[in-house]
Amino acid sequence: MKKTDYDNCPVARTAALIGTRWTIVILRDLFMSDTRRYQDFLDSLEGISPNTLSDRLKMLETAGIIERRIYQQHPPRAEYLLTKKGRELAPTLMAIRDWGIKHG
Amino acid sequence: MKKTDYDNCPVARTAALIGTRWTIVILRDLFMSDTRRYQDFLDSLEGISPNTLSDRLKMLETAGIIERRIYQQHPPRAEYLLTKKGRELAPTLMAIRDWGIKHG
Repeated sequence: MKKTDYDNCPVARTAALIGTRWTIVILRDLFMSDTRRYQDFLDSLEGISPNTLSDRLKMLETAGIIERRIYQQHPPRAEYLLTKKGRELAPTLMAIRDWGIKHG
Repeated sequence: MKKTDYDNCPVARTAALIGTRWTIVILRDLFMSDTRRYQDFLDSLEGISPNTLSDRLKMLETAGIIERRIYQQHPPRAEYLLTKKGRELAPTLMAIRDWGIKHG
């Protein structure tokens, strides 16, 4: 059996992004409301720590899945939204939802 | 914004199972080869610790997604396979793979 190759396996590559605690529900929140502020996530995701939330948002931004946009300068306030690449995760999120509905 | 409700949100329920590091690639291995022994996973999943592997397999078994079957009595040897509920994650795994292919 060959070692997992993250460069060659598309499942493993995607799993490295969405297969981390909180990431799927962060994406769910963005699919449900287009833009979300940092505080919106904190309010929605019961039990997430600010450090973990920042880490996940940074990871998704680095991967090109979400975009951070300044919507107010004084004081600076940012909101997050899905990129085109991020919106293309819709079939994945829908499959996850459908399975959860069937096996709820 | 309401607190995340794991009882009421099908995305969050599924995410609690598959949104944990290693779980998606464990499922991938099972979809690729029907049955897998413990050592097969260890050989395939570079970097996973035996404790983490045991934890994930136990979690998936408790959730009814995989089944553990004894295929040899002396010495006892177990193999793992997807249940019907687990095989119904195929659309999720395929969506994950498709996204990974497109954005590789």
